Parts: sequence; structure tokens; C-alpha cells
Amino acid sequence: MKNLIVGQSGGPTAVINSSLYGVIQEGLAHSEEIGHVYGMINGIQGFLKGKYMDLAELDSQTLTALRTTPGAYLGSCRYKLPENLSDPVYAELFRKFEELSIGYFLYIGGNDSMDTVSKLSRAAEIHKSSIRFIGVPKTIDNDLILTDHTPGFGSAAKYVAASVCEIGLDASGYEAKSVTIIEIMGRHAGWLTAAAALSRKFEGDNPILIYLPEVAFDQEDFIRRIEKAFETKNSLIVCVSEGIHDAEGKFICEYTGSAGTDTFGHKMLTGCGKYLENLVRERLGIKVRSVELNLCQRCSIFSQSLTDAREAALAGSSAVEAALKGESGKMVSFVRTSDEPYELTCSLEDVNSICNQEKKVPLEWITKDGTDVSEEFLTYARPLIQGNPAIPMKNGLPDYAYRR
Amino acid sequence: MKNLIVGQSGGPTAVINSSLYGVIQEGLAHSEEIGHVYGMINGIQGFLKGKYMDLAELDSQTLTALRTTPGAYLGSCRYKLPENLSDPVYAELFRKFEELSIGYFLYIGGNDSMDTVSKLSRAAEIHKSSIRFIGVPKTIDNDLILTDHTPGFGSAAKYVAASVCEIGLDASGYEAKSVTIIEIMGRHAGWLTAAAALSRKFEGDNPILIYLPEVAFDQEDFIRRIEKAFETKNSLIVCVSEGIHDAEGKFICEYTGSAGTDTFGHKMLTGCGKYLENLVRERLGIKVRSVELNLCQRCSIFSQSLTDAREAALAGSSAVEAALKGESGKMVSFVRTSDEPYELTCSLEDVNSICNQEKKVPLEWITKDGTDVSEEFLTYARPLIQGNPAIPMKNGLPDYAYRR
Repeated sequence: MKNLIVGQSGGPTAVINSSLYGVIQEGLAHSEEIGHVYGMINGIQGFLKGKYMDLAELDSQTLTALRTTPGAYLGSCRYKLPENLSDPVYAELFRKFEELSIGYFLYIGGNDSMDTVSKLSRAAEIHKSSIRFIGVPKTIDNDLILTDHTPGFGSAAKYVAASVCEIGLDASGYEAKSVTIIEIMGRHAGWLTAAAALSRKFEGDNPILIYLPEVAFDQEDFIRRIEKAFETKNSLIVCVSEGIHDAEGKFICEYTGSAGTDTFGHKMLTGCGKYLENLVRERLGIKVRSVELNLCQRCSIFSQSLTDAREAALAGSSAVEAALKGESGKMVSFVRTSDEPYELTCSLEDVNSICNQEKKVPLEWITKDGTDVSEEFLTYARPLIQGNPAIPMKNGLPDYAYRR
Repeated sequence: MKNLIVGQSGGPTAVINSSLYGVIQEGLAHSEEIGHVYGMINGIQGFLKGKYMDLAELDSQTLTALRTTPGAYLGSCRYKLPENLSDPVYAELFRKFEELSIGYFLYIGGNDSMDTVSKLSRAAEIHKSSIRFIGVPKTIDNDLILTDHTPGFGSAAKYVAASVCEIGLDASGYEAKSVTIIEIMGRHAGWLTAAAALSRKFEGDNPILIYLPEVAFDQEDFIRRIEKAFETKNSLIVCVSEGIHDAEGKFICEYTGSAGTDTFGHKMLTGCGKYLENLVRERLGIKVRSVELNLCQRCSIFSQSLTDAREAALAGSSAVEAALKGESGKMVSFVRTSDEPYELTCSLEDVNSICNQEKKVPLEWITKDGTDVSEEFLTYARPLIQGNPAIPMKNGLPDYAYRR
């Protein structure tokens, strides 16, 4: 009887441990086919150093808490396997797999992690290994191709939409004109920034401008639109992706790069939100502030989407099923069968086609002037943020799962 | 029969509308003594322009939603009444009060708002007015004196504690050494930054350093402590108040002030977190990032403390009761009668003693080395973050109350 090993890799999400939960539950449920369910500590990098644990050791309270614990419970890594599949590191890995009698290898992660699954599944042929390699998608960026969406995006989108709404309510309390610029994660794909549109409650509501990295950002046009918007509204919310750039491809945040230094001459790196805050202040002389939503976007449990958490667990359990059925070199993908009512099934896609590709927001879903998203995007994204999780609490805070 | 008018002023909190809810419910319940319950739009400043509304107009759904709506529902202002009580603006105000047949004036706010209550209650004598002026405390900073704590603090503290914990879980996923600096609101009082200590789950847990503005910040000592901490831990979380300063009183954020400019020569203003991020990078050459928790600290509803929300409503209803009993020139205060079980009663304090004072974290509650808070603080703060609200939801987001 072979064993299963699962790892987590890349930047975490609010539901990356829900996928782990799905893998563990499904893995342990197949005791007739799977011996041990192991977890790599710090992904493939930690595994190379001999770091792993037996996940049957987790008590039921910890298992439940995994579903509402952000960060990678098993630890993560950012480690790229060599392109050359004859590199000795592969021999080392397959030797270690053999030692642990691994038959099923599951990896929860984004683009780079799918690259790992792809390489290992191809190296398996060289090493005449029968191990089955399956990828479980994960990224708040929602930029994996061949899947309707990615676990992690829904919760991040919910955090963004709720925060944009709340910051709007906070900022609109005063009569004086003001601009609040909210910087949202997503360097190359604007999915998460687009989610800010979900916060609108009525026609003409904030945010008045939403800028994605899929289209070029024009600073002069931006200032003109702010001036225009003040004709009908006093408190303006603008949402920008961290990766917005000008027509030549220069990131807007790079406009701060060369001259920003502190009193000791240290170079100051700031985001595009802070840069645009200064630009608006300088050009319009009005009250302006910027807010970088930052890490909370990908780790807030209070705003976790229950739909997202359930789908993340489903992706994990589906990966186990796929491996048991003999699949390898595949990633679990989501297929949406209906928008209303929202319905979803899992499928499998060739991981080699997925890794190192990026899915961007379709240009048809961005308004022609490049400052907003369309109704199609809202129809796509709204089902993904539904439902609030039941959070186990302790001392007034979520009772997160800890690996000591 | 006289009417009641209520206003909101200063920066909002996650429960400022819970206090408004308390005022409205209690006000409408006393229809034998109170005619109309009015709300000033944009505080005393908007009222001077004739802006107010009849709060009986709110439907029950909106009333309920107020309890989980951030921002000042009635709009806010930052407006300081003249020191000279013979200034014509007072005559104008009392004329308008007379027009609306106001008998009870309630003002929900912090320090500056209590200054407004103080001045109006004293001006009432000059104008031979019998209007009763009562203040309802509100501030995430928790810096009002003569009250155990302030509505708004508990929810902000809960947001800070949960976020610090979640950012810690997110950051600790990697094996490499890293420092994450979290900048928290509170320029002069460190209550909210101290709340980061609530996030610790075991001895030696992050945050490893907590810096409040009550004590001087030494940059060299800070760097030495970071180096020392790496001897036992790879992922370090440091929490700093936005208002930390050196021994001469110079704000740490001011170290970035003079030389930070963007490519157009615009002055870049950043916080102390960003400055310390650059300092650590320059001096230690390790992975470091900074996170400014920013506006979400005071407007996140998902992390609202139910205890805080209930106490905020209680402060509002107590203010109505006090006014009906003939009190004036008073602020509702909280008296803690027991820590375990946590018990609280409302009292009244002279608003003239409260305004323009600041309550700081007692030095006895800060460790001698100035880098942490004591068990006494935890005992004080923990009851204030308990309980999660039931949030009316719509389309996957809180169904916030809107004033159109």
C-alpha cells in the first residue's frame, strides 16, 4: 500500500488550508488504498531536507481549525526545480519518495507550483516511477488558465469588496472634497482589483474609477477624471492595481523609485497608491490619502468566503480521487455549469498547459475608457464571495490552527 | 414637549452607529417626553447650515443595519466652536435650537466633540437656555479620561489583534529570515498598538516587539533586538504605533520627511513602518516588509466586537436617560465593576474635565525595556474584544445602512 504526500507552495491564501483539509479528509478516508497521509514541511524545498510530518497526528480540533486558518499550515517555499530533468536533484527526490513509499504526490499552489508538478510528473518517466502527481490550484490572483477561477480568489475578492465599501463609508462622512486611493494586489492580472466593483450599492456609487494592469494608465487622464467626478460627488474612492503601468509599460510605482530617499539616503520604495496620492495632492491641492490593502487581502479569516472555502476543500478531495484513479500530471480545475443558480463541477487539466501561463481579465470585461469593469465581471465574481464561515473562537479571536 | 437632536463628530469607528442606534431606540421609546428625534447631518457644522433629518423616518431594516455599519451614518465634521462664548455663532446655534424646539442635545464623539458639548453647555447659561447637553464617548484611540474605556476601541483592538495574528501566520510560512513591521493607529496614546499583544497564543509568540508612543524609540536598540531575536526565530513581527518618536520627541516618520521625493520632486510622506522597513533592509540586508493597517482598523465590520457594539449602544441609550433626568454638561462614562466575570455599569462625568485631556497607557503597563506590554494590559483589554456580531448580509457583503 502506497502513501500520500501533500505540500503547499507560494504565497498563501485565506483558504489554502481548506484545500489541505480536503486532502487530509479524503486521504484518510481511503485507508484501503492509502497508507499514510504525509505533509511536506516548507514544500518541496523542506522535503529535500527531510522535513515532513504524518498528518494522522492532527487532532479533530486542529483539523476543523485548518478551515479557518490563513497562511500555509505546512509552511511554504518559493523553489523552482531545474529545467534539466536529468539534474541530480530529481534523483534525490525520487529516492526520498521511494524511502517513504510515496504513491501520490499532491501540491497546493499557483503557477510556480504547477511548474513543480509538471516537472516531477515528467521526471517520473525518466526515473521509471509510478507516483501520481496532481496539482491543487491556489492563488488570490485568479490567474491560472483552464479553470473558471482559483481557490483563494473568492475570499480575497470579498475582503477587497467589503473593505472598499467600508473605507468609502468612513471617508464619505465629511463635507470637504477628498480622494481616497486604494491599492490592491495583482501585478499582472487585475481580477482582485476588479472585485472592488462588487462593493457598489447603487448607480454612481464609489469606487468612481477602477484601474487594472490589463490596460495602460494615463496620469493626465486620471487627474482630469478626478476633477470631473468632483462635479457630482465630494468623496471619491479610486481603486488601482499595484501593477498599473503607463503606455510604455513602466510601472506607476517606479515613478517613485529613483528619487525617493530618506534622511540617510536609503532608497524608499512605495507603491503606486502612495505615488498617486502625492500626485493628486500636488496637482489638485485637496485632501487625499492612500490605503494599501496589503497582506490582509490574502489572510483575513473574518471575511473568508464560505463558497471559496468549500470549493478549496473540494479541490483538495478531488485531487486525491484523481490520483487514486491513476491520473498524473494534472491540475484540478473548476468548470462552472451555471451562473444562476451558481453551479460548479471539478475536472482535470493537463498541468503542462497551465504552468507558466497567466490568465488576465478579458478586455471585453473592461470598459472602453479603461476605468471600470463590466456587468459580465460582476456576474462572474458575485457567486464566489457568498457565505460566511462558522469560525471557532477563543479569547475573542479566531482559534487558528498552529503547527508548533 | 421638547425634541431631541443627536450628532456625530470626529473620525468614525466600527460602532459609532451602534451609539446612534442606542440614542434613536431610547429616544423613540420616550414618546411621552420627547417629541421628535432629529439627527444633525455633518455634526454641528452641518446643523449650522440647516442640515438635519427626522430619525423616525428610518425603517426597521435600516435601524438594524446601523449596528453593523461603519462610518458616521449622519455624516461627521471637524469643527471647533470659538473659545469666546459670546461669539455670534452661539447665538445663531441657540436660535436654531429654539426653532426646532430642542430640549436634548447629544453628541457622539471623542475629545474635540466633548469640547463642543462643554462649550455649548456653558453657553446655555449665557443664553438662558434649558437645553441639556450630553456627550457620548467614541474613539478607537481609547484616550478619553474618566472612563474605563471608550466605545470603538474594542472593535479596533480586535481588528488589530486578529490581523497581527493572521499576518504572522502568513509571514511564518517561509524558512528564510524575515521581518514584518506593522504600523498601527494612535499618534499620542498606544492603546491600539498594545492590543497587538492580544494576538499571542504561546510564550515567545509574535509580535516579538511592541512599541508605543508613551516611551522613546531608539533605532539602534531596535536593530540590536531584531538581530538578537533571530537567534531563536526566523519570522519576526514587530508592531509600532504611528506616533513613535525618539528621545527628543521627533517622530520616527519625520525621518523620511525631508529627503523623500518622487521623480517630479513631490515630497513623499510615509509612515514610520515604511521608514523602519528601509532601515532594517539597509542595516541587516534581510527580507523585510511593512504593513500599515490604516483605515480598516476603524471600519471593519467583520471583526467588530459584539461587546463593543453593545456597550456603544448602551452609551447612547444612557445619554438619553441622563438628559431626561435633567443632567447637562456630562459625558457618559464606563465603570468596570469586575474583570472576571467582566461587568460594567454606566456613569456620568463632568465633560469640562474630560475635553482636551488625553489618557495614555500607564507606564506600569509597559515593560521596563519599553518593547512590550504587561499582563495587566491583557486583563484590561481582553474582555473588550469578545463576541462576534450577527451581520445582515446581501449579495455576499454586509448590508450596510446608507443615507442617500
